[in-house]
Amino acid sequence: MPSYKLYYFDGRGLCEASRQLFAFADVPFEDVRLTREKFMELKPTFPYGQVPVLEVDGVQIPQSVAIARFLAKKFGFAGKTEVEQALVDGICDQWKDFYVETKPYYYSKEKAKTEVLLPARDKFFGFLKNLLNKNKNGFLVEGGVTYADLFIVDNMTSLVGWVPEYFEGHPEIEAYYKRVQDFPQLKAWLAKRPNDPI
Amino acid sequence: MPSYKLYYFDGRGLCEASRQLFAFADVPFEDVRLTREKFMELKPTFPYGQVPVLEVDGVQIPQSVAIARFLAKKFGFAGKTEVEQALVDGICDQWKDFYVETKPYYYSKEKAKTEVLLPARDKFFGFLKNLLNKNKNGFLVEGGVTYADLFIVDNMTSLVGWVPEYFEGHPEIEAYYKRVQDFPQLKAWLAKRPNDPI
Repeated sequence: MPSYKLYYFDGRGLCEASRQLFAFADVPFEDVRLTREKFMELKPTFPYGQVPVLEVDGVQIPQSVAIARFLAKKFGFAGKTEVEQALVDGICDQWKDFYVETKPYYYSKEKAKTEVLLPARDKFFGFLKNLLNKNKNGFLVEGGVTYADLFIVDNMTSLVGWVPEYFEGHPEIEAYYKRVQDFPQLKAWLAKRPNDPI
Repeated sequence: MPSYKLYYFDGRGLCEASRQLFAFADVPFEDVRLTREKFMELKPTFPYGQVPVLEVDGVQIPQSVAIARFLAKKFGFAGKTEVEQALVDGICDQWKDFYVETKPYYYSKEKAKTEVLLPARDKFFGFLKNLLNKNKNGFLVEGGVTYADLFIVDNMTSLVGWVPEYFEGHPEIEAYYKRVQDFPQLKAWLAKRPNDPI
């Protein structure tokens, strides 16, 4: 088996979906959590001066979604057919657009909550509901849980931590949120991981 | 062969890389270019109310990079190994970050040129130079040209159209820009496509 080393800060952020994929697949990895000082020291050695970076047998793969897709393909969580893989990629990019759109909220919570976060949430939850209604299996594509669910649900964990009423009026999204976290392998990881707010 | 229908506006934008992949592979597709009016009419039928959308035998795939990756995998332009595919995905995501970072420039050209575009260019060109130096084959990964080159080079076409000195002081990047456009299949497409500024 290849040796995996995953570099990130001591937080969930854009790395957690990849950690959860290792947990899902029950594959060991080195979970390297950098202090700001250690990050500044290693920054010039990373491909784009950023983390997360996954080191696989000495090769460094950068960019959070590229890392997660690589692991998801290896472990069977990237979609079951070529078309389904493209749909999962599209869902994840749509989530990334949502994440970029809502970033102002992370820096100025009160003002941006009503102006940015909640309108973006309503639009994005609408897309999720369409996918859930279409697939009927409780997930976003026919083949079951994928890396896109992990990005989306982990980001919801941050948002509901700041906005306790985040799921209000959206019971089917809250049920989806719980459904993903209810996989035994994921539950075990959630119980043992550091309890980071973000 | 599946039937392909690609919906977008009458411009290059986020769709052109996928059109170029069809040109590279010499695979026929329906290049549907929507007027604003026609787009507003079809908007509710698209998965996220956006274009580009690729219709493959009736299934609609949304999101520009997901579409391009799907076609690139089919046609052999997505990277030659699992690790290389992840590196290509990471390059493309890094470019997408550059694109999002430089978006203010698209709306306010004078102010944002020195404050946003040129610093982001210098950082991004630095990454491209590292990759070119490492691979020695003139492209960003060992396996040759990929969909990431197509996104990057087409975006350069827009930027050099607005900023004629865009490549000044970066001859190796300008050479790369020309190298990608020099593939005979791509040259033929560039010669016959509508001449859109963006």
